[in-house]
Amino acid sequence: MIEMSFLDYATIVSYKVDQFIYSIISGEPAELYEASLHYIKAGGKRLRPLITILASRIVGGNEETAIPGAAAVEVLHTFTLVHDDIIDKDELRRGVPTVHRLWGIDMAIVAGDTLYAYAYKCLLQALSYGTSSDRVSKAIEYLTEAAITVAEGQALDMLLPSRSTVSESDYINMVKKKTATLFAASAAIGAALAGGSDDVISKLWNIMIMAGIAFQIRDDVLGLIGDERTLGKPVYSDLREGKMTILVIYALNRADEKYRNKMKFVIGNRAATHEELAEVAELIKNLGALEHAEAIADEYAEKTIALVELLNSVDSEALLMMKDVVRFMVRRNY
Amino acid sequence: MIEMSFLDYATIVSYKVDQFIYSIISGEPAELYEASLHYIKAGGKRLRPLITILASRIVGGNEETAIPGAAAVEVLHTFTLVHDDIIDKDELRRGVPTVHRLWGIDMAIVAGDTLYAYAYKCLLQALSYGTSSDRVSKAIEYLTEAAITVAEGQALDMLLPSRSTVSESDYINMVKKKTATLFAASAAIGAALAGGSDDVISKLWNIMIMAGIAFQIRDDVLGLIGDERTLGKPVYSDLREGKMTILVIYALNRADEKYRNKMKFVIGNRAATHEELAEVAELIKNLGALEHAEAIADEYAEKTIALVELLNSVDSEALLMMKDVVRFMVRRNY
Repeated sequence: MIEMSFLDYATIVSYKVDQFIYSIISGEPAELYEASLHYIKAGGKRLRPLITILASRIVGGNEETAIPGAAAVEVLHTFTLVHDDIIDKDELRRGVPTVHRLWGIDMAIVAGDTLYAYAYKCLLQALSYGTSSDRVSKAIEYLTEAAITVAEGQALDMLLPSRSTVSESDYINMVKKKTATLFAASAAIGAALAGGSDDVISKLWNIMIMAGIAFQIRDDVLGLIGDERTLGKPVYSDLREGKMTILVIYALNRADEKYRNKMKFVIGNRAATHEELAEVAELIKNLGALEHAEAIADEYAEKTIALVELLNSVDSEALLMMKDVVRFMVRRNY
Repeated sequence: MIEMSFLDYATIVSYKVDQFIYSIISGEPAELYEASLHYIKAGGKRLRPLITILASRIVGGNEETAIPGAAAVEVLHTFTLVHDDIIDKDELRRGVPTVHRLWGIDMAIVAGDTLYAYAYKCLLQALSYGTSSDRVSKAIEYLTEAAITVAEGQALDMLLPSRSTVSESDYINMVKKKTATLFAASAAIGAALAGGSDDVISKLWNIMIMAGIAFQIRDDVLGLIGDERTLGKPVYSDLREGKMTILVIYALNRADEKYRNKMKFVIGNRAATHEELAEVAELIKNLGALEHAEAIADEYAEKTIALVELLNSVDSEALLMMKDVVRFMVRRNY
């Protein structure tokens, strides 16, 4: 048997999950549903649904059992994007104008709220696929824990810039909540729907927490060195928005007073010019923040890969693809 | 046995539900949780939790079984208040400054999102009270349908003012979604947790849809004739925000061109003076809109009471209180 690459499988999964999402999310008024589906139609990697489906297969389930869960995590993720973009005043996402730019902030708030409820509706469809209500309610518990934790992470992300000092462990805690938990829940939901044991769910959870942290650190790095085309959003938007990325935290804690003041003046200043932002980006690079971030990401990547090597699976193809997904997450440098 | 008045019982229910909510909703960061609990601490009637608990008792359940559901509907309702207040730019709610005024719009968006997830977390606690996952997942389906429908209703509420004509049936459709469905789901969740039949759940649902519509029409009337103290918010705020209330729709469809233009100039105009608003309020009254709205509310009230008379209950005290609650909802004139 020829093994399928996880990228080919991701394409198949994307198609099936999107079809499922479109079959569930529809209604009136039309404006609300157009706004709600805008980012889903715009593309995206569908990494979380892929993780849900592979986790299901690893514990002996199949794709069909996992699809309601896969759709649920993608829809929940999309809701967070809609609300985060309002908060970050982002103008572009996945190469298209953000929901609040096209429909206004009020409609974007309600579109996010609508997606939130539909995440649960997607997951509840598992009942009509014959999955027991015991398994479905366990999956709903993971979805709910993730939703709470992501909101806490978002609040921390907003609050960190106004704190007088921010440590790297504040950052890791924030990223774990804002980014890594939904990856962990994506795996847990897939495994729970397929009746996986608490032991394997806990292993998958820990792998995804580590992988999610590495993923976000690489994302911070990309935000500083990527261009608008690869990012799908303007360069330096993290700096402009005043985000406490691992790069900024490292640089702030190492710069002398003069440079620290310069950074504090430019970072989070929406009136900053492109030149000022580029200058601060240079400063951050010169302080060695990229190398430091890469080293931390490497640590999490190694922990992730060590943990994933300990996983057993009834489906060897799914396990191989899960290993590839995890390597992709922790190394992403496209 | 002395029968308990529903108002006394509401006080007991409020206390128990609030204790339950405080035991579930806590975490970090502190600012997020303070913002999230702000309206719950500020008071409120707890009408929806009372309906959940009475519905449970009517089908043979008890208070304890229903409390996770009662808390869930109150928390979901509170989430909608936080987001609606941002959208309506309201400054006061339950006599206290709104969440977005105290913590800013961004934190208010996230506080609403947090409450949303906690509504599910409250309901999921029913599993640890020994309720079967079949019953809990049925209750979760009602909560989810309500959340979707309320979001659609909120979107319609925002969109109606920009439509060239709005009919009374557009209004009833909006109110059914935005207000009545959560009352209906409150009853359905209580009955579902207690194992009520589909037949009785459907009866309770219909009663609450009718009662919820009457409740909202009375609320529109109160918004025009109440004072700031009884409303807990500024007078004429519906007019200032450009809401398509049943009063405004009736008046717009009956005013001659001169008055219609006057109304269209003032309604939804945030720069309108108190005098202009008062003048338009007089105009609406002179066109007979209050009498018309009361007549429509009376129709829904009568339908509600006719339906509630057909209900059977294994708990006669709960049925009597449910009848009182419904009468209170459809007649409220405090």
